[in-house]
Amino acid sequence: MDRISLDDLNRADMSGFVAALGDIFEHAPWVAQAAAAARPFPTLQALHTAMGAAVRNEGEDTRLELIRAHPDLAGKAALAGDLTAHSKAEQSGAGLDTMSPVEFETFHRLNTAYREKFGFPFIVCVRRHTRSSILAAFERRLANARAEEIATAVDEICRIAALRLDARVGAPDRLPVNGHLSTHVLDAHAGRPAAGVAVTLVELMGEGRERPVVEAVTNADGRTDHPLIAGRPLPIGTYELRFSIGAYFSARAVPLADPPFLDVVPVRFSLAEPEGRYHVPLLVTPWSYSTYRGS
Amino acid sequence: MDRISLDDLNRADMSGFVAALGDIFEHAPWVAQAAAAARPFPTLQALHTAMGAAVRNEGEDTRLELIRAHPDLAGKAALAGDLTAHSKAEQSGAGLDTMSPVEFETFHRLNTAYREKFGFPFIVCVRRHTRSSILAAFERRLANARAEEIATAVDEICRIAALRLDARVGAPDRLPVNGHLSTHVLDAHAGRPAAGVAVTLVELMGEGRERPVVEAVTNADGRTDHPLIAGRPLPIGTYELRFSIGAYFSARAVPLADPPFLDVVPVRFSLAEPEGRYHVPLLVTPWSYSTYRGS
Amino acid sequence: MDRISLDDLNRADMSGFVAALGDIFEHAPWVAQAAAAARPFPTLQALHTAMGAAVRNEGEDTRLELIRAHPDLAGKAALAGDLTAHSKAEQSGAGLDTMSPVEFETFHRLNTAYREKFGFPFIVCVRRHTRSSILAAFERRLANARAEEIATAVDEICRIAALRLDARVGAPDRLPVNGHLSTHVLDAHAGRPAAGVAVTLVELMGEGRERPVVEAVTNADGRTDHPLIAGRPLPIGTYELRFSIGAYFSARAVPLADPPFLDVVPVRFSLAEPEGRYHVPLLVTPWSYSTYRGS
Amino acid sequence: MDRISLDDLNRADMSGFVAALGDIFEHAPWVAQAAAAARPFPTLQALHTAMGAAVRNEGEDTRLELIRAHPDLAGKAALAGDLTAHSKAEQSGAGLDTMSPVEFETFHRLNTAYREKFGFPFIVCVRRHTRSSILAAFERRLANARAEEIATAVDEICRIAALRLDARVGAPDRLPVNGHLSTHVLDAHAGRPAAGVAVTLVELMGEGRERPVVEAVTNADGRTDHPLIAGRPLPIGTYELRFSIGAYFSARAVPLADPPFLDVVPVRFSLAEPEGRYHVPLLVTPWSYSTYRGS
Repeated sequence: MDRISLDDLNRADMSGFVAALGDIFEHAPWVAQAAAAARPFPTLQALHTAMGAAVRNEGEDTRLELIRAHPDLAGKAALAGDLTAHSKAEQSGAGLDTMSPVEFETFHRLNTAYREKFGFPFIVCVRRHTRSSILAAFERRLANARAEEIATAVDEICRIAALRLDARVGAPDRLPVNGHLSTHVLDAHAGRPAAGVAVTLVELMGEGRERPVVEAVTNADGRTDHPLIAGRPLPIGTYELRFSIGAYFSARAVPLADPPFLDVVPVRFSLAEPEGRYHVPLLVTPWSYSTYRGS
Repeated sequence: MDRISLDDLNRADMSGFVAALGDIFEHAPWVAQAAAAARPFPTLQALHTAMGAAVRNEGEDTRLELIRAHPDLAGKAALAGDLTAHSKAEQSGAGLDTMSPVEFETFHRLNTAYREKFGFPFIVCVRRHTRSSILAAFERRLANARAEEIATAVDEICRIAALRLDARVGAPDRLPVNGHLSTHVLDAHAGRPAAGVAVTLVELMGEGRERPVVEAVTNADGRTDHPLIAGRPLPIGTYELRFSIGAYFSARAVPLADPPFLDVVPVRFSLAEPEGRYHVPLLVTPWSYSTYRGS
Repeated sequence: MDRISLDDLNRADMSGFVAALGDIFEHAPWVAQAAAAARPFPTLQALHTAMGAAVRNEGEDTRLELIRAHPDLAGKAALAGDLTAHSKAEQSGAGLDTMSPVEFETFHRLNTAYREKFGFPFIVCVRRHTRSSILAAFERRLANARAEEIATAVDEICRIAALRLDARVGAPDRLPVNGHLSTHVLDAHAGRPAAGVAVTLVELMGEGRERPVVEAVTNADGRTDHPLIAGRPLPIGTYELRFSIGAYFSARAVPLADPPFLDVVPVRFSLAEPEGRYHVPLLVTPWSYSTYRGS
Repeated sequence: MDRISLDDLNRADMSGFVAALGDIFEHAPWVAQAAAAARPFPTLQALHTAMGAAVRNEGEDTRLELIRAHPDLAGKAALAGDLTAHSKAEQSGAGLDTMSPVEFETFHRLNTAYREKFGFPFIVCVRRHTRSSILAAFERRLANARAEEIATAVDEICRIAALRLDARVGAPDRLPVNGHLSTHVLDAHAGRPAAGVAVTLVELMGEGRERPVVEAVTNADGRTDHPLIAGRPLPIGTYELRFSIGAYFSARAVPLADPPFLDVVPVRFSLAEPEGRYHVPLLVTPWSYSTYRGS
């Protein structure tokens, strides 16, 4: 989908502007309408700030109405297929569309407890999360006071809007909504980048379950041709990188034990900053390795 | 059980000697009887060598008889409870007593193919193996020629005998039948041994299954009070050491990400030398670690 | 100095071409003249290849004449100031202009021995070397046979020419004459690039002597703003990178011993590939570090 | 020299006791005499504590007298050869007997300034120091107040006495006066201890000067047969361990660059705890290494 240019938005009449951005805030075209008055926007950041200000300048009732326009996470609307396309894509990305009955039950319990305490649905910018981190946030935020939680919900809505805006509008700047995860394998036995190492990234979902995120093979520079994750937020959660080191050294005729001391090397780590830059390299011989959060 | 002293064995009459060592070779007291002639033995090693020589000096028929006196691995005798106490203990150690029907089926298939090809049962010194490495050896040895396989079976029988002898007889020397696996955690953030780190060793059995081997907590010197495995052969196989690093640093009030970049650090490696000395240390900060086969 | 474009050279008349490139080969404008016939050159590499072919197609007498047109290294011509500007710049770069009397004596002795054995001066592409590696090459090449040494001298002359051409001519391609040396400091105590670390690179000249190559301070990304060496060959030799780690951690209020366990961290390494890419990073805490040849 | 047993000291008459321990405190047999009253001493530690208490229970005049009985460091008494045997041995150990005229001048200046300010000589337990750390302590302590400095001088005298006592008296316990410095080289290229690596330890004295401390070669376990320093305090100061890694890998026919990327690996560190335990291992391949303060 081609992006709409910021220039065009600055020049559009009100109905065109609202047509373009009316769904950036869920079921709330009035946010676009209110922000339009602040045109022209020199940057995408300025547009996002103006839309956020439009929400925050409203009274609590209006903000609550905005919050309440959002569906429950993994709730009945999801089961009934009754979500906006945006919400559906976002919820499925975090694996909320493929839970077990027990997990639906957990979400249902938390949704109910949250609604009972606060009177509005739990809102989180799902694309910054895994199922595990959503559950952790759910439990943590249930302990908040109501005013704090209203502010948090608005913050999350603005994060959701930022992601939608960044995807929708072409501008000289980009919003800081994306993270970056990369790796690098260095063969310290031969003193050169390790080419041809199979690398798998999986998300660890708890209780021994996992799901694949990406598979790649290192190139001549010991890197993967594409970042492991880029162009989107890094979902907060726990991951394992698995490097097929035994096959690599075996293919290079390096003498190995049988079975090799190191075969698949797992590196387990958590991503905590969705907009962060993570580099997780491996420096490896058949008998040793080191890894670290690099840059 | 108290060990019999080598001195007493050297001085015993023939019936006493055979009573003491007659079951070192399965169902073959004649091995002890033949070895007795070479007394006195200055060392346990000399006794073991003499018993092995007694077997190897016999003709093929006798050696085959000895081989055939051994039960199938995880075979009908095991199912029927019809094993010598020795064999039963040895087979259960490698987890051969708790297989799934599919695994029994695999063993049954291999046992049958092996018997059909060679005319005798597959023999392996089970205490040097895990289920995975037994299966790998099974597949590999099925490709051997018959003469080679007879020799291999006798070698394995002598390994079994060495373990039994080492447990039975007190002597100035010990047989080199045991391995040693240890770990050490060094906190490179504070520059001192990491005390109080929970460490778990599990055997990885393939297809995502695992079984616990030992749990420990590091002491003031960053080591475990006892080696992870000692006083026995190290079963050939793949293992994972898991270090609870996140809890350690968190308890020391070191600033961490949320969730911490490193929480449980898995170190996956294979043991290939059952009588070897393996040291697998971890040098760790909240953001990096290294490990290696040390000594 | 602006570069001459390859296009202009392709279009120039013979006298213009020779005027532009006549001194690429020392005192031998005939090389340019001979190569001119092969125009047009699509790339700089093609031009360099043609000039090398022009030399190698000549008989031994002509090649010897070319070789003999070069001055002795650190010889009388240098003492008398009687060198071409090119030769002077090249010799001073390797420190050949600042030797002690003993070192001049060593060079004099080697020059004499070489001339006596081969009948022509010792030629080496000085910009690819340090004084130490020139001496090592000198000793090694003195053992060569004459034919081998003539070929080696021509190879070195072509390397000198490549450097001169690459500096003189603008073209779509560049000749592979340059190397690259960089570093990176990662603070594994805090899990981020180490900014503000003073880094010094010195050449170790043997017998405890050294000379500074470059000083830098790491930036926010833990790198130096410019590579330590780039845009020229890496002189073969031994170096030490010195990282002021104690000052860095002290400035960040990290608890240290007094004196700190690590203060200046020296990393000593040799460069052996003048056209290579070397990355020598440091991963450091107040109590540990690692380094490696990276990429 | 055989040690006197603590038992014998406990049973000796007063004159025997004072004869045995009268010189533990420089020119002050009265300290032994006073401590004798507290006999019997169950441990050497108890004896040392009693002697220290005897000093600290005296009035300032007596303590000053004790302090003033000590010679200047590297002072006129040293130049004139007019030191007790103890003092002479202790001062020469730290290299105070081989200073340049400039260094003598520095010590002279500091001695004079110290005496002028405090009215007594600067006292330090020399065996816990290098020349550099003595100078650093000198400068630092010059800034102290007089009462603080009297206490510091007594503390240092008690440290000197502890070392003398520990060498003189045989007892079930030892005084905690000794440190321990060891190393270990692990070959991560081959996955085993690196045997036959030449290791040199030098003290870095500042301004590019150094002096050798010990040379060793690693044994089959990758360690040196004896600790690098043991059985004495570790002199506070800066050191460099130099590992001849290039020769090691070259002797094992490992492919190396020419010159090898790593040849002599220097590890520079400071010892700050004279009674501490330092382990400084090297984990190395031809292209990488790591080191840390181990235990």
